[in-house]
This record gives sequence, C-alpha cells and structure tokens, in this order.
Amino acid sequence: MSAIPKEFLNKTARLSAEVTRPIPGSEKIYLSGSRPDVRVPMRVVEQQPTAASFGAEENPPITVYDTSGPYTDPQAHIDLLRGLPPLRQAWIEERGDSSALDGPSSAYGRQRLNDEQLAPLRFAHARKPRRAHSDANVTQMHYARRGVITPEMEFIALRENLRLQEIRADARYQALLPQHKGESFGARIPQMVTPEFVRDEVARGRAIIPANINHPELEPMVIGRNFLVKINTNIGNSAVTSSIEEEVEKMVWAVRWGSDTVMDLSTGKHIHETREWILRNSPVPIGTVPIYQALEKVDGKAEELTWEIFRDTLVEQAEQGVDYFTIHAGVRLPFIPLTARRVTGIVSRGGSILAKWCLAHHQESFLYTHFEEICEVMKAYDVSFSLGDGLRPGSIADANDDAQFAELKTLGELTQIAWRHDCQVMIEGPGHVPMQLIKENMDKELEDCHEAPFYTLGPLTTDIAPGYDHITSAIGAAQIGWYGTAMLCYVTPKEHLGLPNKQDVRDGIITYKIAAHAADLAKGHPGAQLRDNALSKARFEFRWQDQFNLSLDPDKAQEFHDETLPKEAHKVAHFCSMCGPHFCSMKITQDVRDYAKAHGISDAQQALEEGMKEKAAEFKDRGVEIYQQA
Amino acid sequence: MSAIPKEFLNKTARLSAEVTRPIPGSEKIYLSGSRPDVRVPMRVVEQQPTAASFGAEENPPITVYDTSGPYTDPQAHIDLLRGLPPLRQAWIEERGDSSALDGPSSAYGRQRLNDEQLAPLRFAHARKPRRAHSDANVTQMHYARRGVITPEMEFIALRENLRLQEIRADARYQALLPQHKGESFGARIPQMVTPEFVRDEVARGRAIIPANINHPELEPMVIGRNFLVKINTNIGNSAVTSSIEEEVEKMVWAVRWGSDTVMDLSTGKHIHETREWILRNSPVPIGTVPIYQALEKVDGKAEELTWEIFRDTLVEQAEQGVDYFTIHAGVRLPFIPLTARRVTGIVSRGGSILAKWCLAHHQESFLYTHFEEICEVMKAYDVSFSLGDGLRPGSIADANDDAQFAELKTLGELTQIAWRHDCQVMIEGPGHVPMQLIKENMDKELEDCHEAPFYTLGPLTTDIAPGYDHITSAIGAAQIGWYGTAMLCYVTPKEHLGLPNKQDVRDGIITYKIAAHAADLAKGHPGAQLRDNALSKARFEFRWQDQFNLSLDPDKAQEFHDETLPKEAHKVAHFCSMCGPHFCSMKITQDVRDYAKAHGISDAQQALEEGMKEKAAEFKDRGVEIYQQA
Repeated sequence: MSAIPKEFLNKTARLSAEVTRPIPGSEKIYLSGSRPDVRVPMRVVEQQPTAASFGAEENPPITVYDTSGPYTDPQAHIDLLRGLPPLRQAWIEERGDSSALDGPSSAYGRQRLNDEQLAPLRFAHARKPRRAHSDANVTQMHYARRGVITPEMEFIALRENLRLQEIRADARYQALLPQHKGESFGARIPQMVTPEFVRDEVARGRAIIPANINHPELEPMVIGRNFLVKINTNIGNSAVTSSIEEEVEKMVWAVRWGSDTVMDLSTGKHIHETREWILRNSPVPIGTVPIYQALEKVDGKAEELTWEIFRDTLVEQAEQGVDYFTIHAGVRLPFIPLTARRVTGIVSRGGSILAKWCLAHHQESFLYTHFEEICEVMKAYDVSFSLGDGLRPGSIADANDDAQFAELKTLGELTQIAWRHDCQVMIEGPGHVPMQLIKENMDKELEDCHEAPFYTLGPLTTDIAPGYDHITSAIGAAQIGWYGTAMLCYVTPKEHLGLPNKQDVRDGIITYKIAAHAADLAKGHPGAQLRDNALSKARFEFRWQDQFNLSLDPDKAQEFHDETLPKEAHKVAHFCSMCGPHFCSMKITQDVRDYAKAHGISDAQQALEEGMKEKAAEFKDRGVEIYQQA
Repeated sequence: MSAIPKEFLNKTARLSAEVTRPIPGSEKIYLSGSRPDVRVPMRVVEQQPTAASFGAEENPPITVYDTSGPYTDPQAHIDLLRGLPPLRQAWIEERGDSSALDGPSSAYGRQRLNDEQLAPLRFAHARKPRRAHSDANVTQMHYARRGVITPEMEFIALRENLRLQEIRADARYQALLPQHKGESFGARIPQMVTPEFVRDEVARGRAIIPANINHPELEPMVIGRNFLVKINTNIGNSAVTSSIEEEVEKMVWAVRWGSDTVMDLSTGKHIHETREWILRNSPVPIGTVPIYQALEKVDGKAEELTWEIFRDTLVEQAEQGVDYFTIHAGVRLPFIPLTARRVTGIVSRGGSILAKWCLAHHQESFLYTHFEEICEVMKAYDVSFSLGDGLRPGSIADANDDAQFAELKTLGELTQIAWRHDCQVMIEGPGHVPMQLIKENMDKELEDCHEAPFYTLGPLTTDIAPGYDHITSAIGAAQIGWYGTAMLCYVTPKEHLGLPNKQDVRDGIITYKIAAHAADLAKGHPGAQLRDNALSKARFEFRWQDQFNLSLDPDKAQEFHDETLPKEAHKVAHFCSMCGPHFCSMKITQDVRDYAKAHGISDAQQALEEGMKEKAAEFKDRGVEIYQQA
C-alpha cells in the first residue's frame, strides 16, 4: 500500500452495496439472554405455504446461524470510521480484572501512534488498549475453570442452539425434526447447549472462545468438537497491495457468506493500521500470524528475528484486539532435517521462517524457548493460541510423515504448558493428505493434544487439480470435520496459483460451509438436518423462492435458476427445467402420495397385498395426468 | 429441435476449435498390443529439467489416461459426417458370431429410416446394424466365461496400466514411485493389470466392458472396483432443444475433460437421429435410459407404455450401438407405497414413470416381468445393464430407507438372472446421503448385488447448497469411490436449478475427476500417486508450466496463475504470487535440503544432535538469502 487511499483522507470510507444489502429472503433477529445486552443475532427464513395441489399447509420459519454482523441488519447504522458498537465492553469492564492503559505498551504501537504522517491513515476512534491487572488472568478459560459463566458463554449457548428447544416444542416443526443417527467418533455433543456446558468445555480445553478484551466488538463464538463446525477465511493484501478500505470490505464479504473467523495475513507497510480498521469493524474473531509482521520489522531477514521484536509484535497486536495468534512453536530444531527428503519440504510460511532461524542460529526457536513468556502475554489480553503446523505436508507424498507428527506431539506438550496458564489453545493441522490417511491425523491430534480443538487447512486429497483446490480440499475437510475437527480453514480456487478475488473468496467460503455442514450432519449434530429437510420439502413442493432462501447462497441459486427459466412465473411453476412442463417426477410422487393417503394406506406393503388391485382401477379413473395447472 | 439445423443441410458439420485443439502440454501416443490394430491411446506430458538452483536433474515424461479420442490427435482427420474409424470392426467380425442385418429390425428404426423428411438430418454413412446369430451370445462376459481374451480386454489391460511396468523399471522414475499404502476395503487391485485379469474380473461379474457390437468406434474401457475409478457425464437437450451438432459437440467436450462414458438423456422429436450422430462420433461408451424414448412414443402417457413399445425401443437403440441401458426393473409394485411418506418421494425420472405405470395397472412393471426377454436383447448386441435406482433418495431425509434398499435387493436378484444369460451388469446408486450413511450403501451393494460394479450419482452429502451440488456431491462421490464404487456419475453446479452450459459441464467433470482420483489414491491404486508426486515436485521446483500441464485442467491452472502474474517471465519465476518475490517458503526448504545434503546428514535427527551446532555457523556464512535470481 504505497499511497494513502484518498477515501480515508476524505473521511468517506464506505462499503459497497454488494456486501451490506440484507441477505435475500431472510430477516435478522436477536435472541435475548439473561441480561438485555446479551443479544444474539440470527437470521430467520420465512416460508411460503404449500400449494393446494400438494396439501395446503403452513411452513414454519427456519432459523439459521448468522455470522454477518450488523452489516446485514437494515436497522444498524454502519460507520466504518467509528467501527461497530463495542457490545462486550460492559462485560469486560464489569469483571474488574483489567484496565485501560494510557496508550500502547508496545514500542512499535507507540511509534506508529506518534508518526504524524500516518494520521490520515489511522483509525480515528481507537480506544485505549486494555490489559489485565498484573495479578489477573482474563482468559475465558480462566473464568471457566473458576466456575464463572461469562456473558460470552451465555451468548454462545443461545447462538449454538438456534432456538432448537422452542422448535422441538412447536407442532409446526414436527415433520422437519426427524434426523438420521450420527456417528461422532467419540464427540460428546449435547442435545441442548447450555451456558454451563459451554463453560465446562472451555474449562476442559475442549473448546475455545477467541475473544480478546481489546476486541469488544465481536459477537462471541466457540470453536470445539462438541459444537457446530466452524470455518475460517484468510484475507490479506499479500505482495500486491490493496487499500485499507478494500481489506475491510473483504472481511465484511467473508462474514456475509458465513465465515466464523477471519485471519488477516496482510503484509506490507501499513498492516498495523489496516489491522486496526479490520478489528474495529469486525463482528468475528480475527486471527493473525505475528511472525509475518515481525519478519517485516527485520526487512525479511529471518535470521535477524529476535524474541524481543517478536514479543513487542505480540503486545502490539494483542492491544489492538487480535483474538488468536498462530504461533509456530512446534518447529523444533531437531525436526527440521526430517523435512529434507520430502517432495515439498516446508510449505508453511511461518514454518520456513522459523526453520531458517533455527538453522542459522543452531538453536531452538525463541517461540519454543520463550513459550511461557508468550503465555504471559496471551493471558493478559485473552489471545487464544492457534499452535501452528509449520511442518505440515505440502503434498500427498509428504502426508503423515515423521516431521509432521513430531511437531504435532510437541504442540501437545505446549498445549499442556498453555493450559497451566489457563490460556486457550487450538491446534493447526494439514494440509495435503490422501483420504485413507486423514483419520490418523484426527486421532493423533486428539490423543497427543489432549482434545484441544483441531483447526485444519483442508486437507487437500490430491495434488493434481490446481484451479480446483477448494474442491480437492473440501473433500478432505468434510471428512476431517466429521472425524472431529472443530474449525476448517478455507481454500480458494486460486490456491497454489494466485491471489483470490471476491468471487474466489465467495466460492471458497460456500465450499467450506458445505464441508462444515456435511460434517455436522454426519456427526448427528442436533437440529442440523432441519434446514436440509426444510429445503428438500420446499424443493419437492416447487416452492422455488423458499429453496433459494434456505440455501447457503441464495443469490447463486436464483441466478442459476433464472439462467434457464428467467420468468417470474417460473418461480411458482410446478416443474423444473430438467424435465420441462410436460413430465415431472415430483408430480408423480405426489400422485403416489395422494393415492396412499386417499386409500388409507398406512402400512403400505400389507395394504398393497390385500387390496390394491381394485384401487388401481380407481386411480386410473381419477385421471393420471402428469402435469396439472397450479 | 424444431428445425433441421442448416449446418447439416449444408453438410458442413464442424466442431468448434475449443473442443478439438490438442490438450495443452501433452502429446498423444498409442501403445501397441499383440496385434497392430490394438492401439491404445494415452497422453504424455513432457517435463522440463529441474533448474540448477534446485539440483539440475531431468524429469521424466508422465503418462496419463486419455479419454478424448482422436479429437485431440493432430494427426487424426475428423469428419463428423463420416464418424470415427470403426477400430473394433475387425475384432467383432473375426468372432464370427454376428452378422450385419439388411436394415433395422425395430419397427421404429425402420420407420425413421423410411421417412424421407428426415433424410437431411440423418447420418449418411450409417452401417447396417449387426446382431448375434440366433444361437450366439456376443457379450464380453460370455467370451470371458469361456476363457477367451478378447482384443477389447487386451486393450483395456494396456490402458489401465499406463506403462507402469516400464516406468517401474526406469531409473528416472524411482523418486516418483513411492506411494502411501491404500485402504481398499476388500478390493483386489493387482499390481499389474493383465489381459487375463480383465477377463477374470469380467467373467466373475466384478467388472463390465460396455461395448455394443454396433459401436465399433469406441476405445474399450472397463468399469470395476479393481480398476481405476471412472466417471460419467450426462448430456441431453432436455426441454430446451439444441441442434444435433451441438449435441455432438457436448459429447466431444465431455470426453476432452476426461469423461469415461457419456449418457445421452436427450428428449424430443429427433433423438433417434441425434443418437446416431453421437454414437458414430463417440470414442467412449454411450448409455441411455430407453424408457425416456419409449415414453415419447406414447406422448408422455406413462400408463400407455407397453412391453412391445419398450422392446422395440431397446432393439432400435441396441442396433444403433448404445453400450449400456439404464433399466429400472427394480421398481416393483410393492415398493412404491414405501415412498409415500418420504420428504421427496420418487425423484428418479425413470422411477416415477414406472411407478405411475405400476399404480395405473396394479401390476409389476413390464421391465420386471419381461426381464429375461430384455436379457435376450442385451446379449444379441452386448448392451450392458445399468440397473437403475428408480427409488433412490432425493434428499438427506430419505437416504437409506426401506424403499431404496428393497429396490437394491431386487437389483441383486436381477443381476443373477442377467448373469445366467452372461449379460454384463452394473448397479446404479444414490443420490442424497449424509456421510455417515454412505458406507452402508456400498456394503449392501456388494453383498446384495454380488460385487457387480456400483455406479452412483454423487451422493450429495447435504441438501442446502443448490448452485454448488457438484461440490456437495463430490464429497460423497470421493468417499463412495474409495469404498468401492466403480463409476461416478457427475453432477453439475446447475443440478436442481437448470440446464448446464459448457462451463458447468467442465466444472462437473473436473470435480468428478478429482473425486475419482482421490478415491484411486485412497484405495492405493498402483501408480495412482505418480502424477501427484510429479506435479508436487514441479510445484516445489517452480516449474510452473509442468505444474499446469500435469493438472487435470491445464487451461484453468494457467489462466488463474496469469490473472495474478501475467508475464511470461513469471512462469519461470522462483516465487509465487502468494508470498511474492521477497519471501518464499519453498526457497527456504531448498536451503534446508542443501544444508542437509552438503553436510552429509542422512539420519537427520542423529546428525543434528552430534554436530549441527558448528555447521550452523557455516550455513550462516554461506549467506542465507531467501530470494536468489534464477
């Protein structure tokens, strides 16, 4: 970012209509908790009644999880220059274990603040950073272990439940509630998520709530195997730069499509300021890889990195409000040569930075040797660890090798250290793994890392489809999600080839929402099948608009439909473009159903044997027209 | 198709350059068998040498399976008006068990031939149809069971092997050969496919070779659990019609991207003529659903269908050369009411036609009652059965229900009847199935259908992503392929919404090539990982062009790369757009490798412990520049 975007100089920073218009076909609602400031966002999809020819019944509204923040709420006033309302501020202050500082305590944070040239670029309404009192620990895990149910935990319980208790008690939903028995491979998913359950899972380390006390704008969410599977989107300007406004737009775009967290992997001269804009406007947890910025501070020379520079970067970012840090502390010196005979060596950027440092100094990395000091920083702000897999395999050939699993074991040891500090931890996972080796990754992670949540990139199940790696990896992501991975890091079609544009990001996110939801279904997550059932019923009944509205991407569904049958009339047509108006298998099924009903066939097979023959004649008399006008 | 396309009147039928230009970065070759007319097509991707900075070595050519037929062979002369050369003609004639007839023996075939108005539309160089002698059986299964290895079987053995024996013996490939141990769930995949192995699998019914004696143009291929996983593409004009030329273009487009078979699901007035054009120009087996055309012959009134009309349709299509027929003979009368309480009833078009007929007549369908007579037709031409799953689930809710599995059991009974006639059989499968229920489908199919090859649509693993059902289904397809499904029927992004255009077809096919290949890798198919290893090595060594050429879709890979880094120079750049030129994790890995090599570290961990400290100093002295000019 060489020039300061003039939008910011003019103070007219604005998002495009594309990312802020309400999501079609749904309405934003808020569920209230035990106190008025626990207001949990969801979206509700109202449905049309079933047409008379299909039995004329009401179809109840369907509640869906919503990550999009105030941006899709027509009641919300969005002002990027002021940021989102700090909804957690009172909760944080009430705890009385942290205070606002006079200013940034990192050297770099002060330097940036005092740089007059940056003034036009700077987020004007930044709060003073907040830090735990010197004897305090402000992590959600710390509260959880002391038996405290925080407002964040209550918020999450309401959010995860999606009104399921209410729905179970409502007669209108009974036909939509049946669900296949899941296979959860030992997960302990409750029938109902209570605030106490959230607390207990966080206390055990089986779930994390990434929620820095300096990011009060976020709508709390949980990452854990016994909750809904989450997805992460990476954004970042990389080498080709974009304006701050564009970066905020990317974040808003990502949460609109369903991203549960966003990692800001930006590089460049103004990442400190960019990050501030993103955080102040982000309703979801933001993750970073601090070593990237630390490397910039030493002009890209990995061997010149020091613990002091790194620590200052942690504090700088923690005081801005970053919710989780990828820390590659498992890249140990003895593991590095284990990668020498790999087909693709070390492909993690963080891993290779650390490897280079370790080789140059012939020392264990400062991340490893200073790990307890990192914990001290993390717990002063409640930044969660995302322990990085710097030695993850970059090809099918390198999957599940000694380097990868040696690092994983180390991450488990570090997890126990972090937990001694009541720091929240998740574990990053691969990468490229053929299907038959995926489960071993999950099993080892659960064992070696003591059930800390697993957070994987894909894995990609083949290397031979660059241009389609959102798909090669969704195949693996759905499986590892099923086996127990708590969060899936998305992959775009541009992986390995270039920088994703907006459409690539959307494709990547929807693909990962599919993988995550397929995993929820397979695990038998309570209520997960409700939306599938509702959408399929709408499809069967030719309620086209309901089908669009219930889908993960209503715009795309409608656009594809309209390509073939553009007219408005076709959205109520009792046929679809595959078979045309003259023949329709769904219509015939309705004949079968009407028939069975009209003749009181409940145990179908018996009824058939007893007396269907004569009834067949009636059926024929009634007329067996396939297509009937609505 | 209301009007006769004038291209045909002008006799200038021509494919677009888009479907006929050679596939970039590969060269067509032919392997010879024991006789000169066994010429097996493959493609060979030549690779660039490794750059000096990565160790300067030659990279051997990679052989890939090729379904594209003569269209991608610059030496071939393509003339749609004459069709492809009948490469199997001599093999069929030599067997001496069939003869050319004077003309079509179906009433409909004769009627179309004698209709003067159709002359301009008709394929001009159609051969006389051929039929088995009255006491003969011309199926590949019949030959196989008599111990005969046909040229088709030899062709397939060469094709499946992809020169693997040669490669194993060639020193240049040793680094690319290592492969993870697979999990094949009881499949018996040989280290080398011999003609005898092909024969044995066909004799046992574990594999089929769809190869009608009236389709001599096809390049033989095999569908079976112990061979490479195959994919099918559906084409068809559906309600919105297209010209014959367009239909041929669709078929050529499908095989270009890797479709192993093509199903022609066209409807409309000229499907007989369209089919002739497709068959005469198709290098892959063509499948159809004859009940669709039979229904047209009774003006869409299912209850007016008769065995006689259906049989005439079978003969009509068999004499044109259709290689496999979907026959929904498992839709039995007692099973139909089992669908009444489903969320989405009967979604198979064939299934609902049959259901309607059964209800109207209160009789078992003529497909079921005349099944042995169908076998008589099939074996006179060697049309393979694809036993249709007319009761497949159309939603997650309906997966694995009584209706579905009752039909599957019936398909197993019918398989045994077909096998008594030495007819080749594969079994169609679902549909919509959540992940945890997929394996049960495969297990039941193997048991109930006696290991006849399974051929599934997807399955889709969630219903909530219309617009992305190529992906929801690829997740399921990869898994069921891994578990043992022999062929995967593709799904396009337009599924449930509209008619696929050319790009949708391409997306669907590549997505399914990914699923099939991921399954081959997971099963541990010998040699399957070679291409992944080669591509990943190319990626690691920044051989961009090799990476593109080895990918399933070289055009897309290059296009995506060029979007971010368009210049020609960047295709030899030792960095990629994700990290830019100033930092590159792959470069660092090379440092690790150079280091390990230079210092003779073979058992890395030991070496490290013994003396790496002093060596670290040297490393630093050598300079640890990250980016070096090529």
